Amino acid sequence: MKRYKKEDDVSYTLGASLTFQLLETRPELAREVYMHPSMDAGETGERVRALCAGLRLPLVVSPKPLAVLSDKENCYLAARFAKFCEPLSADGDHVVLVCPSNAGNLGTILRSCLGFGYRDLAIIRPAADLFDPKTVRASMGAVFGVRAMYFDSFDEYRADWPRAFYPLMLRARQSLDQTVFEHPHALIFGNEATGLPPSFLDTGTPVVIRHGTDIDSLNLPVAVSIALYEATRGRAF
Amino acid sequence: MKRYKKEDDVSYTLGASLTFQLLETRPELAREVYMHPSMDAGETGERVRALCAGLRLPLVVSPKPLAVLSDKENCYLAARFAKFCEPLSADGDHVVLVCPSNAGNLGTILRSCLGFGYRDLAIIRPAADLFDPKTVRASMGAVFGVRAMYFDSFDEYRADWPRAFYPLMLRARQSLDQTVFEHPHALIFGNEATGLPPSFLDTGTPVVIRHGTDIDSLNLPVAVSIALYEATRGRAF
Repeated sequence: MKRYKKEDDVSYTLGASLTFQLLETRPELAREVYMHPSMDAGETGERVRALCAGLRLPLVVSPKPLAVLSDKENCYLAARFAKFCEPLSADGDHVVLVCPSNAGNLGTILRSCLGFGYRDLAIIRPAADLFDPKTVRASMGAVFGVRAMYFDSFDEYRADWPRAFYPLMLRARQSLDQTVFEHPHALIFGNEATGLPPSFLDTGTPVVIRHGTDIDSLNLPVAVSIALYEATRGRAF
Repeated sequence: MKRYKKEDDVSYTLGASLTFQLLETRPELAREVYMHPSMDAGETGERVRALCAGLRLPLVVSPKPLAVLSDKENCYLAARFAKFCEPLSADGDHVVLVCPSNAGNLGTILRSCLGFGYRDLAIIRPAADLFDPKTVRASMGAVFGVRAMYFDSFDEYRADWPRAFYPLMLRARQSLDQTVFEHPHALIFGNEATGLPPSFLDTGTPVVIRHGTDIDSLNLPVAVSIALYEATRGRAF
Protein backbone atom coordinates (compact mmCIF):
# COMPACT_ATOMS: atom_id res chain seq x y z
CA MET A 1 0.00 0.00 0.00
CA LYS A 2 1.48 3.32 -1.10
CA ARG A 3 0.32 6.87 -1.61
CA TYR A 4 -1.04 7.79 -5.01
CA LYS A 5 1.46 8.73 -7.71
CA LYS A 6 0.66 10.28 -11.06
CA GLU A 7 2.21 7.33 -12.93
CA ASP A 8 -0.09 4.78 -11.28
CA ASP A 9 -2.88 3.26 -13.31
CA VAL A 10 -5.19 3.37 -10.31
CA SER A 11 -6.32 6.18 -8.01
CA TYR A 12 -8.43 6.56 -4.86
CA THR A 13 -11.67 8.01 -3.61
CA LEU A 14 -10.96 9.38 -0.12
CA GLY A 15 -14.10 9.82 1.98
CA ALA A 16 -17.47 8.16 2.38
CA SER A 17 -19.66 10.08 -0.04
CA LEU A 18 -17.11 9.92 -2.88
CA THR A 19 -16.62 6.23 -2.32
CA PHE A 20 -20.34 5.51 -2.38
CA GLN A 21 -20.62 7.54 -5.56
CA LEU A 22 -17.94 5.40 -7.18
CA LEU A 23 -19.52 2.14 -6.06
CA GLU A 24 -23.00 3.19 -7.10
CA THR A 25 -22.37 5.03 -10.38
CA ARG A 26 -19.19 3.42 -11.74
CA PRO A 27 -18.89 0.06 -9.96
CA GLU A 28 -16.97 -1.45 -12.88
CA LEU A 29 -14.02 0.83 -12.05
CA ALA A 30 -13.72 -0.13 -8.37
CA ARG A 31 -10.92 -2.50 -7.37
CA GLU A 32 -10.77 -2.57 -3.57
CA VAL A 33 -12.46 -0.85 -0.64
CA TYR A 34 -10.84 0.29 2.63
CA MET A 35 -12.93 0.83 5.75
CA HIS A 36 -11.89 1.97 9.22
CA PRO A 37 -12.80 -0.60 11.91
CA SER A 38 -14.73 2.10 13.80
CA MET A 39 -17.24 2.20 10.93
CA ASP A 40 -17.70 -1.52 10.69
CA ALA A 41 -20.44 -1.91 13.29
CA GLY A 42 -22.82 0.86 12.14
CA GLU A 43 -25.21 1.30 9.24
CA THR A 44 -22.51 2.60 6.93
CA GLY A 45 -20.53 -0.55 7.59
CA GLU A 46 -23.48 -2.70 6.61
CA ARG A 47 -24.04 -0.71 3.44
CA VAL A 48 -20.38 -1.03 2.50
CA ARG A 49 -20.36 -4.78 3.16
CA ALA A 50 -23.51 -5.27 1.10
CA LEU A 51 -22.13 -3.26 -1.82
CA CYS A 52 -18.79 -5.04 -1.78
CA ALA A 53 -20.45 -8.46 -1.58
CA GLY A 54 -22.76 -7.60 -4.49
CA LEU A 55 -19.85 -6.37 -6.60
CA ARG A 56 -17.47 -9.13 -5.41
CA LEU A 57 -15.03 -6.44 -4.34
CA PRO A 58 -12.28 -7.06 -1.77
CA LEU A 59 -12.93 -5.11 1.45
CA VAL A 60 -10.06 -4.31 3.83
CA VAL A 61 -11.18 -3.34 7.33
CA SER A 62 -8.13 -1.66 8.89
CA PRO A 63 -6.94 1.84 9.79
CA LYS A 64 -3.60 1.36 8.02
CA PRO A 65 -4.36 1.84 4.32
CA LEU A 66 -6.51 4.86 5.14
CA ALA A 67 -3.68 6.45 7.10
CA VAL A 68 -1.26 5.84 4.25
CA LEU A 69 -3.57 7.14 1.51
CA SER A 70 -4.89 10.21 3.25
CA ASP A 71 -3.28 13.43 4.41
CA LYS A 72 -6.03 13.97 6.89
CA GLU A 73 -6.82 11.76 9.83
CA ASN A 74 -10.55 11.81 9.37
CA CYS A 75 -10.81 9.53 6.34
CA TYR A 76 -12.81 6.42 7.28
CA LEU A 77 -13.73 5.04 3.88
CA ALA A 78 -11.82 4.89 0.60
CA ALA A 79 -11.64 2.84 -2.57
CA ARG A 80 -9.09 2.08 -5.23
CA PHE A 81 -10.35 2.51 -8.78
CA ALA A 82 -8.96 2.03 -12.27
CA LYS A 83 -8.24 5.20 -14.22
CA PHE A 84 -10.23 5.48 -17.42
CA CYS A 85 -10.37 7.48 -20.62
CA GLU A 86 -13.31 7.89 -22.97
CA PRO A 87 -13.15 9.76 -26.29
CA LEU A 88 -14.90 13.12 -26.37
CA SER A 89 -18.22 13.36 -28.13
CA ALA A 90 -18.17 14.86 -31.62
CA ASP A 91 -21.46 16.75 -31.42
CA GLY A 92 -21.43 17.91 -27.78
CA ASP A 93 -20.09 21.27 -26.58
CA HIS A 94 -16.63 21.04 -25.02
CA VAL A 95 -14.57 22.81 -22.38
CA VAL A 96 -10.86 23.10 -23.16
CA LEU A 97 -8.37 23.86 -20.40
CA VAL A 98 -4.95 24.95 -21.60
CA CYS A 99 -2.34 24.01 -18.98
CA PRO A 100 -4.39 24.20 -15.77
CA SER A 101 -1.96 23.77 -12.89
CA ASN A 102 -4.04 23.18 -9.77
CA ALA A 103 -5.74 19.88 -8.92
CA GLY A 104 -8.37 21.48 -6.67
CA ASN A 105 -9.30 23.94 -9.42
CA LEU A 106 -9.56 21.12 -11.95
CA GLY A 107 -11.93 19.24 -9.66
CA THR A 108 -14.13 22.30 -9.08
CA ILE A 109 -14.28 22.85 -12.85
CA LEU A 110 -15.38 19.23 -13.39
CA ARG A 111 -18.20 19.80 -10.89
CA SER A 112 -19.43 22.90 -12.74
CA CYS A 113 -19.07 21.21 -16.15
CA LEU A 114 -21.28 18.33 -15.06
CA GLY A 115 -23.74 20.74 -13.44
CA PHE A 116 -24.18 22.79 -16.62
CA GLY A 117 -24.29 19.77 -18.91
CA TYR A 118 -20.80 20.01 -20.44
CA ARG A 119 -19.74 16.36 -20.38
CA ASP A 120 -16.59 16.74 -22.48
CA LEU A 121 -13.34 18.19 -21.21
CA ALA A 122 -10.11 18.53 -23.20
CA ILE A 123 -6.96 19.25 -21.21
CA ILE A 124 -3.79 20.56 -22.87
CA ARG A 125 -0.51 19.49 -21.23
CA PRO A 126 1.41 20.34 -19.08
CA ALA A 127 -1.53 20.13 -16.73
CA ALA A 128 -2.84 19.04 -13.36
CA ASP A 129 -3.73 15.37 -12.96
CA LEU A 130 -7.39 14.46 -13.49
CA PHE A 131 -7.05 11.47 -11.17
CA ASP A 132 -5.10 13.07 -8.35
CA PRO A 133 -7.17 12.27 -5.24
CA LYS A 134 -7.34 16.06 -4.65
CA THR A 135 -8.98 16.52 -8.06
CA VAL A 136 -11.36 13.63 -7.42
CA ARG A 137 -12.32 15.09 -4.05
CA ALA A 138 -12.81 18.67 -5.29
CA SER A 139 -14.94 17.30 -8.15
CA MET A 140 -17.34 15.80 -5.58
CA GLY A 141 -17.44 12.76 -7.85
CA ALA A 142 -18.06 14.69 -11.09
CA VAL A 143 -14.87 13.11 -12.45
CA PHE A 144 -16.93 9.92 -12.87
CA GLY A 145 -19.52 11.67 -15.03
CA VAL A 146 -17.39 13.67 -17.50
CA ARG A 147 -15.36 12.43 -20.50
CA ALA A 148 -11.86 13.88 -20.35
CA MET A 149 -8.88 13.60 -22.68
CA TYR A 150 -5.35 14.98 -22.54
CA PHE A 151 -3.61 16.49 -25.58
CA ASP A 152 -0.04 17.65 -26.11
CA SER A 153 -1.13 20.84 -27.85
CA PHE A 154 -4.23 22.80 -28.76
CA ASP A 155 -3.54 22.08 -32.44
CA GLU A 156 -3.68 18.37 -31.74
CA TYR A 157 -7.10 18.81 -30.11
CA ARG A 158 -8.35 21.13 -32.82
CA ALA A 159 -7.40 18.75 -35.63
CA ASP A 160 -9.68 16.06 -34.23
CA TRP A 161 -12.61 18.16 -32.98
CA PRO A 162 -13.38 21.06 -35.33
CA ARG A 163 -16.04 23.41 -33.96
CA ALA A 164 -16.70 27.07 -33.02
CA PHE A 165 -14.00 28.24 -30.61
CA TYR A 166 -14.56 30.78 -27.81
CA PRO A 167 -11.30 31.54 -26.00
CA LEU A 168 -11.86 33.45 -22.74
CA MET A 169 -9.30 36.25 -22.62
CA LEU A 170 -8.89 39.48 -20.70
CA ARG A 171 -7.79 41.20 -23.93
CA ALA A 172 -10.84 40.12 -25.96
CA ARG A 173 -13.17 42.84 -27.24
CA GLN A 174 -16.41 40.93 -27.19
CA SER A 175 -18.22 40.72 -23.89
CA LEU A 176 -19.45 37.31 -22.71
CA ASP A 177 -22.96 38.63 -22.11
CA GLN A 178 -23.19 39.85 -25.74
CA THR A 179 -22.18 36.52 -27.20
CA VAL A 180 -24.53 34.20 -29.09
CA PHE A 181 -22.93 30.78 -29.01
CA GLU A 182 -22.89 28.46 -32.01
CA HIS A 183 -22.98 24.70 -31.57
CA PRO A 184 -21.04 22.57 -31.26
CA HIS A 185 -18.51 24.82 -29.60
CA ALA A 186 -15.53 24.77 -27.29
CA LEU A 187 -15.04 27.26 -24.44
CA ILE A 188 -11.28 27.64 -23.99
CA PHE A 189 -9.48 28.77 -20.81
CA GLY A 190 -5.81 29.37 -19.99
CA ASN A 191 -3.58 28.71 -17.03
CA GLU A 192 -4.38 30.20 -13.59
CA ALA A 193 -1.39 32.56 -13.56
CA THR A 194 -0.81 33.34 -17.22
CA GLY A 195 -4.16 32.97 -19.03
CA LEU A 196 -4.17 31.99 -22.71
CA PRO A 197 -1.25 32.86 -25.01
CA PRO A 198 -1.91 35.89 -27.29
CA SER A 199 -2.20 33.57 -30.32
CA PHE A 200 -5.73 32.74 -29.15
CA LEU A 201 -6.77 36.30 -30.04
CA ASP A 202 -6.81 34.91 -33.63
CA THR A 203 -8.70 31.73 -32.71
CA GLY A 204 -12.46 31.74 -33.20
CA THR A 205 -14.30 34.42 -31.19
CA PRO A 206 -12.34 35.62 -28.16
CA VAL A 207 -14.62 36.66 -25.31
CA VAL A 208 -14.09 38.55 -22.03
CA ILE A 209 -15.94 38.40 -18.72
CA ARG A 210 -15.99 42.07 -17.85
CA HIS A 211 -15.12 43.04 -14.28
CA GLY A 212 -13.63 46.01 -12.46
CA THR A 213 -9.94 46.87 -12.51
CA ASP A 214 -9.50 46.37 -8.76
CA ILE A 215 -8.67 42.74 -9.45
CA ASP A 216 -6.34 41.38 -12.12
CA SER A 217 -8.53 38.44 -13.00
CA LEU A 218 -11.14 36.05 -11.68
CA ASN A 219 -10.27 32.72 -10.11
CA LEU A 220 -10.14 30.06 -12.87
CA PRO A 221 -13.04 27.81 -11.74
CA VAL A 222 -15.09 30.98 -11.23
CA ALA A 223 -14.37 32.19 -14.77
CA VAL A 224 -15.15 28.78 -16.28
CA SER A 225 -18.40 28.51 -14.32
CA ILE A 226 -19.60 31.99 -15.28
CA ALA A 227 -18.95 31.18 -18.94
CA LEU A 228 -20.85 27.87 -18.62
CA TYR A 229 -23.72 29.67 -16.90
CA GLU A 230 -23.93 32.29 -19.65
CA ALA A 231 -23.57 29.81 -22.52
CA THR A 232 -26.46 27.74 -21.14
CA ARG A 233 -28.59 30.73 -20.12
CA GLY A 234 -32.29 29.97 -20.46
CA ARG A 235 -31.72 26.25 -20.97
CA ALA A 236 -34.19 24.07 -19.03
CA PHE A 237 -32.23 21.97 -16.53
CA MET B 1 7.63 34.94 16.28
CA LYS B 2 4.74 32.49 16.17
CA ARG B 3 2.30 31.15 13.62
CA TYR B 4 -0.92 33.07 13.10
CA LYS B 5 -3.80 32.36 15.48
CA LYS B 6 -7.37 33.51 15.10
CA GLU B 7 -7.24 35.43 18.39
CA ASP B 8 -4.28 37.59 17.29
CA ASP B 9 -4.90 41.20 16.40
CA VAL B 10 -2.40 40.99 13.56
CA SER B 11 -2.13 38.70 10.55
CA TYR B 12 0.30 38.09 7.68
CA THR B 13 0.64 38.43 3.94
CA LEU B 14 2.62 35.41 2.78
CA GLY B 15 4.23 35.90 -0.63
CA ALA B 16 5.72 38.72 -2.66
CA SER B 17 2.75 39.99 -4.65
CA LEU B 18 0.41 40.02 -1.63
CA THR B 19 3.00 41.82 0.45
CA PHE B 20 3.56 44.48 -2.21
CA GLN B 21 -0.18 44.93 -2.48
CA LEU B 22 -0.39 45.54 1.27
CA LEU B 23 2.51 48.00 1.27
CA GLU B 24 1.25 49.88 -1.77
CA THR B 25 -2.52 49.96 -1.14
CA ARG B 26 -2.85 49.83 2.65
CA PRO B 27 0.55 50.92 4.02
CA GLU B 28 -1.05 52.21 7.23
CA LEU B 29 -1.87 48.61 8.21
CA ALA B 30 1.66 47.21 7.82
CA ARG B 31 3.70 46.59 10.96
CA GLU B 32 6.82 44.65 9.94
CA VAL B 33 8.28 43.05 6.81
CA TYR B 34 10.16 39.74 6.54
CA MET B 35 12.49 39.06 3.63
CA HIS B 36 14.57 35.98 2.83
CA PRO B 37 18.30 36.81 2.53
CA SER B 38 18.36 35.28 -0.96
CA MET B 39 16.11 38.12 -2.16
CA ASP B 40 18.14 40.88 -0.60
CA ALA B 41 20.61 41.42 -3.42
CA GLY B 42 18.19 41.62 -6.37
CA GLU B 43 15.70 44.18 -7.64
CA THR B 44 12.93 42.93 -5.38
CA GLY B 45 15.20 43.46 -2.40
CA GLU B 46 15.81 47.05 -3.43
CA ARG B 47 12.11 47.67 -3.91
CA VAL B 48 11.34 46.22 -0.48
CA ARG B 49 14.07 48.28 1.21
CA ALA B 50 12.87 51.46 -0.47
CA LEU B 51 9.25 50.84 0.55
CA CYS B 52 10.16 50.01 4.14
CA ALA B 53 12.41 53.06 4.43
CA GLY B 54 9.69 55.31 3.02
CA LEU B 55 7.10 53.89 5.40
CA ARG B 56 9.54 53.67 8.35
CA LEU B 57 8.71 49.97 8.65
CA PRO B 58 11.00 47.48 10.39
CA LEU B 59 12.50 45.01 7.90
CA VAL B 60 13.80 41.63 9.09
CA VAL B 61 16.12 39.90 6.62
CA SER B 62 16.23 36.29 7.77
CA PRO B 63 14.85 32.91 6.71
CA LYS B 64 13.52 32.15 10.18
CA PRO B 65 10.30 34.14 10.50
CA LEU B 66 9.30 33.06 6.98
CA ALA B 67 9.82 29.42 7.88
CA VAL B 68 7.72 29.82 11.03
CA LEU B 69 4.89 31.72 9.35
CA SER B 70 4.54 29.65 6.22
CA ASP B 71 3.51 26.07 5.57
CA LYS B 72 5.33 26.07 2.30
CA GLU B 73 9.04 26.46 1.88
CA ASN B 74 8.86 28.85 -1.03
CA CYS B 75 7.77 31.97 0.84
CA TYR B 76 10.43 34.65 0.47
CA LEU B 77 8.55 37.79 1.45
CA ALA B 78 5.88 38.41 4.09
CA ALA B 79 4.51 41.20 6.23
CA ARG B 80 2.66 41.52 9.50
CA PHE B 81 -0.39 43.77 9.35
CA ALA B 82 -3.02 45.02 11.79
CA LYS B 83 -6.49 43.55 11.39
CA PHE B 84 -9.15 46.13 10.63
CA CYS B 85 -12.90 46.53 10.49
CA GLU B 86 -14.89 49.16 8.61
CA PRO B 87 -18.66 49.54 8.84
CA LEU B 88 -20.61 48.44 5.76
CA SER B 89 -21.99 51.11 3.48
CA ALA B 90 -25.71 51.87 3.84
CA ASP B 91 -26.46 52.47 0.17
CA GLY B 92 -24.20 49.91 -1.50
CA ASP B 93 -25.25 46.37 -2.45
CA HIS B 94 -24.04 43.71 -0.01
CA VAL B 95 -23.04 40.06 -0.03
CA VAL B 96 -24.06 38.10 3.07
CA LEU B 97 -22.39 34.77 3.85
CA VAL B 98 -24.18 32.68 6.45
CA CYS B 99 -21.66 30.46 8.23
CA PRO B 100 -19.06 29.93 5.49
CA SER B 101 -16.61 27.36 6.81
CA ASN B 102 -13.63 27.38 4.45
CA ALA B 103 -10.92 30.06 4.46
CA GLY B 104 -9.89 29.45 0.84
CA ASN B 105 -13.51 29.80 -0.29
CA LEU B 106 -13.90 33.01 1.69
CA GLY B 107 -10.81 34.45 -0.01
CA THR B 108 -12.01 33.48 -3.49
CA ILE B 109 -15.38 35.10 -2.72
CA LEU B 110 -13.66 38.34 -1.65
CA ARG B 111 -11.80 38.36 -4.97
CA SER B 112 -15.04 38.02 -6.95
CA CYS B 113 -16.83 40.61 -4.78
CA LEU B 114 -14.15 43.19 -5.47
CA GLY B 115 -14.12 42.27 -9.16
CA PHE B 116 -17.85 42.81 -9.56
CA GLY B 117 -17.94 45.96 -7.45
CA TYR B 118 -19.51 44.52 -4.27
CA ARG B 119 -17.40 46.20 -1.61
CA ASP B 120 -19.48 45.18 1.41
CA LEU B 121 -19.48 41.71 2.92
CA ALA B 122 -21.47 40.61 5.98
CA ILE B 123 -20.43 37.31 7.56
CA ILE B 124 -22.72 35.47 9.97
CA ARG B 125 -20.95 33.42 12.66
CA PRO B 126 -19.80 30.69 13.14
CA ALA B 127 -17.61 31.36 10.14
CA ALA B 128 -14.17 31.12 8.60
CA ASP B 129 -11.66 33.79 9.58
CA LEU B 130 -11.35 36.77 7.23
CA PHE B 131 -7.75 37.33 8.29
CA ASP B 132 -6.51 33.75 8.21
CA PRO B 133 -3.42 33.92 5.97
CA LYS B 134 -5.15 31.30 3.76
CA THR B 135 -8.10 33.67 3.25
CA VAL B 136 -5.76 36.58 2.58
CA ARG B 137 -3.83 34.52 0.04
CA ALA B 138 -6.90 33.15 -1.77
CA SER B 139 -8.30 36.69 -1.93
CA MET B 140 -5.22 37.77 -3.92
CA GLY B 141 -5.26 40.90 -1.78
CA ALA B 142 -8.98 41.66 -2.26
CA VAL B 143 -9.33 41.48 1.54
CA PHE B 144 -7.70 44.92 1.60
CA GLY B 145 -10.33 46.41 -0.73
CA VAL B 146 -13.60 45.12 0.76
CA ARG B 147 -15.43 46.22 3.94
CA ALA B 148 -16.34 43.18 6.00
CA MET B 149 -18.23 42.79 9.27
CA TYR B 150 -19.11 39.78 11.40
CA PHE B 151 -22.55 39.32 12.98
CA ASP B 152 -23.85 36.77 15.46
CA SER B 153 -27.06 36.22 13.52
CA PHE B 154 -28.77 37.23 10.30
CA ASP B 155 -31.37 39.13 12.35
CA GLU B 156 -28.62 41.24 13.86
CA TYR B 157 -27.37 42.14 10.38
CA ARG B 158 -30.86 42.72 9.04
CA ALA B 159 -31.80 45.13 11.85
CA ASP B 160 -28.97 47.47 10.89
CA TRP B 161 -29.04 47.20 7.11
CA PRO B 162 -32.58 46.98 5.76
CA ARG B 163 -32.68 46.34 2.00
CA ALA B 164 -34.03 43.90 -0.64
CA PHE B 165 -32.92 40.37 0.23
CA TYR B 166 -32.10 37.67 -2.34
CA PRO B 167 -31.25 34.38 -0.63
CA LEU B 168 -29.70 31.86 -3.04
CA MET B 169 -31.38 28.51 -2.41
CA LEU B 170 -31.74 25.25 -4.29
CA ARG B 171 -35.41 25.12 -3.26
CA ALA B 172 -36.26 28.60 -4.57
CA ARG B 173 -38.76 28.85 -7.43
CA GLN B 174 -37.44 31.95 -9.12
CA SER B 175 -34.55 31.49 -11.49
CA LEU B 176 -31.53 33.80 -11.13
CA ASP B 177 -31.61 34.72 -14.82
CA GLN B 178 -35.25 35.88 -14.52
CA THR B 179 -34.55 38.15 -11.57
CA VAL B 180 -34.60 41.95 -11.76
CA PHE B 181 -32.62 43.17 -8.76
CA GLU B 182 -33.70 46.13 -6.64
CA HIS B 183 -31.13 48.35 -4.96
CA PRO B 184 -29.75 48.44 -2.41
CA HIS B 185 -29.84 44.69 -2.01
CA ALA B 186 -28.11 41.82 -0.29
CA LEU B 187 -27.29 38.52 -2.01
CA ILE B 188 -27.35 35.85 0.70
CA PHE B 189 -25.54 32.49 0.62
CA GLY B 190 -25.43 29.57 3.04
CA ASN B 191 -22.76 27.22 4.28
CA GLU B 192 -20.80 25.00 1.84
CA ALA B 193 -22.31 21.74 3.07
CA THR B 194 -25.77 22.72 4.26
CA GLY B 195 -26.83 25.82 2.30
CA LEU B 196 -29.25 28.29 3.90
CA PRO B 197 -31.78 27.17 6.54
CA PRO B 198 -35.35 26.75 5.19
CA SER B 199 -36.45 29.93 7.03
CA PHE B 200 -34.82 31.93 4.24
CA LEU B 201 -37.56 30.72 1.89
CA ASP B 202 -39.65 33.41 3.64
CA THR B 203 -36.96 36.10 3.43
CA GLY B 204 -37.14 38.54 0.52
CA THR B 205 -36.98 36.88 -2.91
CA PRO B 206 -35.33 33.46 -2.87
CA VAL B 207 -33.51 32.70 -6.10
CA VAL B 208 -32.00 29.54 -7.61
CA ILE B 209 -29.11 29.06 -10.04
CA ARG B 210 -30.55 26.30 -12.18
CA HIS B 211 -28.27 23.39 -13.06
CA GLY B 212 -28.60 19.72 -13.90
CA THR B 213 -29.36 17.04 -11.34
CA ASP B 214 -26.05 15.22 -11.88
CA ILE B 215 -24.54 17.40 -9.16
CA ASP B 216 -26.04 18.24 -5.78
CA SER B 217 -24.92 21.85 -5.81
CA LEU B 218 -22.31 24.24 -7.14
CA ASN B 219 -19.14 25.08 -5.26
CA LEU B 220 -19.84 28.08 -2.97
CA PRO B 221 -17.45 30.65 -4.54
CA VAL B 222 -18.77 29.56 -7.95
CA ALA B 223 -22.39 30.14 -6.88
CA VAL B 224 -21.58 33.54 -5.35
CA SER B 225 -19.66 34.62 -8.44
CA ILE B 226 -22.40 33.57 -10.87
CA ALA B 227 -24.92 35.56 -8.82
CA LEU B 228 -22.63 38.61 -8.80
CA TYR B 229 -22.13 38.28 -12.55
CA GLU B 230 -25.88 38.10 -13.18
CA ALA B 231 -26.78 40.90 -10.78
CA THR B 232 -24.28 43.23 -12.52
CA ARG B 233 -25.07 42.04 -16.06
CA GLY B 234 -24.74 44.85 -18.56
CA ARG B 235 -23.00 47.17 -16.10
CA ALA B 236 -20.03 49.02 -17.60
CA PHE B 237 -16.89 47.99 -15.71
